[in-house]
Amino acid sequence: MASRRNFIKNTSIAGMGLFAVPGFAHNSFSAADKLNVGLIGVGLRGTNHLQNLLLRKDVNVTAICDVDADRITIAKKHIADAMGKTPKVFGANELDYKNLLALPDVDAVIIATPWLWHTRMTVDAMEAGKYAGVEVSASNTLEECWDLVNTHERTGTHMMILENVNYRRDVLAVLNMVKQNIFGEMVHYRCGYQHDLRHVKFNDGKTAYGKGVEFGEKGISESKWRTEHSVKRNADVYPTHGLGPIAVMADVNHGNRFMSMTSHASKGIGLHNYIVKEGGEEHPNAKVKFKQGDVITSTIDTANGETIIITHDCNLPRPYSLGFRAQGANGLWEVDGSRIYVEGKSEPHQWDDAQPWLDTYDHPLWKKYGEYALNAGHGGMDFFVLNSFVESAKQNIAPPLDAYDAAAWSAVTPLSELSIANNGEPQDFPDFTRGLWMKRTPYNWMKETY
Amino acid sequence: MASRRNFIKNTSIAGMGLFAVPGFAHNSFSAADKLNVGLIGVGLRGTNHLQNLLLRKDVNVTAICDVDADRITIAKKHIADAMGKTPKVFGANELDYKNLLALPDVDAVIIATPWLWHTRMTVDAMEAGKYAGVEVSASNTLEECWDLVNTHERTGTHMMILENVNYRRDVLAVLNMVKQNIFGEMVHYRCGYQHDLRHVKFNDGKTAYGKGVEFGEKGISESKWRTEHSVKRNADVYPTHGLGPIAVMADVNHGNRFMSMTSHASKGIGLHNYIVKEGGEEHPNAKVKFKQGDVITSTIDTANGETIIITHDCNLPRPYSLGFRAQGANGLWEVDGSRIYVEGKSEPHQWDDAQPWLDTYDHPLWKKYGEYALNAGHGGMDFFVLNSFVESAKQNIAPPLDAYDAAAWSAVTPLSELSIANNGEPQDFPDFTRGLWMKRTPYNWMKETY
Repeated sequence: MASRRNFIKNTSIAGMGLFAVPGFAHNSFSAADKLNVGLIGVGLRGTNHLQNLLLRKDVNVTAICDVDADRITIAKKHIADAMGKTPKVFGANELDYKNLLALPDVDAVIIATPWLWHTRMTVDAMEAGKYAGVEVSASNTLEECWDLVNTHERTGTHMMILENVNYRRDVLAVLNMVKQNIFGEMVHYRCGYQHDLRHVKFNDGKTAYGKGVEFGEKGISESKWRTEHSVKRNADVYPTHGLGPIAVMADVNHGNRFMSMTSHASKGIGLHNYIVKEGGEEHPNAKVKFKQGDVITSTIDTANGETIIITHDCNLPRPYSLGFRAQGANGLWEVDGSRIYVEGKSEPHQWDDAQPWLDTYDHPLWKKYGEYALNAGHGGMDFFVLNSFVESAKQNIAPPLDAYDAAAWSAVTPLSELSIANNGEPQDFPDFTRGLWMKRTPYNWMKETY
Repeated sequence: MASRRNFIKNTSIAGMGLFAVPGFAHNSFSAADKLNVGLIGVGLRGTNHLQNLLLRKDVNVTAICDVDADRITIAKKHIADAMGKTPKVFGANELDYKNLLALPDVDAVIIATPWLWHTRMTVDAMEAGKYAGVEVSASNTLEECWDLVNTHERTGTHMMILENVNYRRDVLAVLNMVKQNIFGEMVHYRCGYQHDLRHVKFNDGKTAYGKGVEFGEKGISESKWRTEHSVKRNADVYPTHGLGPIAVMADVNHGNRFMSMTSHASKGIGLHNYIVKEGGEEHPNAKVKFKQGDVITSTIDTANGETIIITHDCNLPRPYSLGFRAQGANGLWEVDGSRIYVEGKSEPHQWDDAQPWLDTYDHPLWKKYGEYALNAGHGGMDFFVLNSFVESAKQNIAPPLDAYDAAAWSAVTPLSELSIANNGEPQDFPDFTRGLWMKRTPYNWMKETY
């Protein structure tokens, strides 16, 4: 397993001075120690993580893996430019990542691959004793959710779901408000992924997010694998950007848990319409039947009596919104319209602009590192989620967003699919903690370190 | 039955010149003919209707009914001031309304009584051949929903559910946009009643909406009867302000229908908290157990594949919002934030301020009568819903919002209660049209008369 003993001391990294990270890298870890990180998947998302890793003093990127040679070339150049070194490279076939996992000079891995690989690779990483970070969503099926939990428990190796929205500035400020009881006892939440992904699900096979209506074999980047989930599944296939932040506010798996859920799918016309509009009625993809409804609405009941609405709305033209609401006995926040109402503080029946509230309750992390994080190229919320992963991995302690969280949040996908297929029939969430949610205390989110 | 033949000609009404309604009263009805209207219930809401009726040239208020003598006194004064006449008065006991319904000089009745009386009185009105208008919500149980439909069909008498929000200016402008296909094929809707009613559900027994934590026998006005529904029922007891407008946009009962629904209730703490805060822990009402959850979320599947989320959120501190969204293949409107996005018209991924869109698509009715309706005391949307009722009753034709609409919308209350009690189990909507929804063409909403 990764531990401080395993970290290779390496101080000869070129160029790091240019990107010196202030203070924080020294809080919990000697600057001389480095976490050896391997990257599985260096597509657009993995490269983003790579770039942020390369800015850190306390990380050594020792190995990369991708089946796409072009992506390897790009990643190697980033590493050479920043570190003057050549990583070990894997990707000869789809299972070559296992050889990366066998390396002694990999302490931790970041998995940023197509969804169908997330759980497989995370499980294999934990089996190999590598502290694992996996991109969202973590699992495709209920069995995979259990695989994450069971492997974590059996091996003792940690994993973190790398949900960056949990570190968004407004989200952490509202979490701060929730923890300080500004909204009183919490009652109701809303969230979702409302993002017009038509330009992501289709392209021309040349540019990731350009024009075109190809996907699968003829597509590139996300359209190559992501769109198939819209063809084959009528489910909320991407719940965590919305649900992750809400789950933390609601202490899910730490004194609370998701109990059951119903889901409803609208008709699905957006993707077909887009193909016809951009590619014409005669384009072969105009014949594709997409199972996924355009707007999927799920409602969760929690053990503590809150309800949570989750929306998946990715196939229609619309501006982006994660649709957050956090509502308690004393007031509520709504991200749409950026507004807050707190009884006794706000004018009766009148919304406050949220910003002054968000400023007042700015999270310690953002207060300390916000300026750094927001500077060009440092990733904003991506900086914080990665920081949290690295700091947790360095100490080999449980991360803020663990296997139980990954399992509970990702379970929305198969459970929504079952509910939709059964006319909205309620589906019970497995208790991935096997009862321990009652005893587990909340993770301490209100600190300024990671 | 009420018909043009029954209208008593009465041109000797004092003061009407002062309140002359422009033009519209003459469109479909001779100014010399008057609709004789009886009012059952002249509480705050009924008196509001009374005042608006008294402004019309084409209406004669011939009878009023209320068990509260004080309210009768107020109503009589309004009538005397406006018409110089004394109406026939009923209210000796709770069933005295039946004597009002027996009057030959009543063509139509407006029912604005506590919810438990709505269906009973509407059914009796139709049995008596009186064109019936009933306040929202229309029915408390599924059987009552059927009572409305069956009585209408058996007697041939019409009824209208007096949902004023269907006539709100933004709602009618968006309906105009939907009808003109601005949003393309419709996919998803949201609506609800999000209104802090704590000052309505409780008072001091002296003023309707003042301070105090009394209800039931010790309360007055709405707290006298309305609050009991929060004690006894865990249901969306007030769905129509939100659902009525959406049902019309979605052509429900006219080529579409509600198929099934799931509902979820959050914990219910708001009303108890309010009693403790305002009345102290020792107040007897602090012991009352309220069944109603604070936030109730229902999701409907329609026959045409849209989904509709309905929210009931009346027990917590929050600013008012009906939470509308109307979303189609080309774009969407959201009332929160007052914003619209239409692909190809709006800047990509950017919301437009809704107002210019709403101005452009202002409904013909509001274009013609908006200035009049908005003048002090003329009721705004209340003017339009009443106008629609009176004009339909004068012609004795089916109203825009009929028995099938009243039944389908009101059915949300008992169905949500069943679903909540059964862990979110989906509940099928009865087909109140007995299959005719497939053939019924949409009501023509886009006219400038009523």
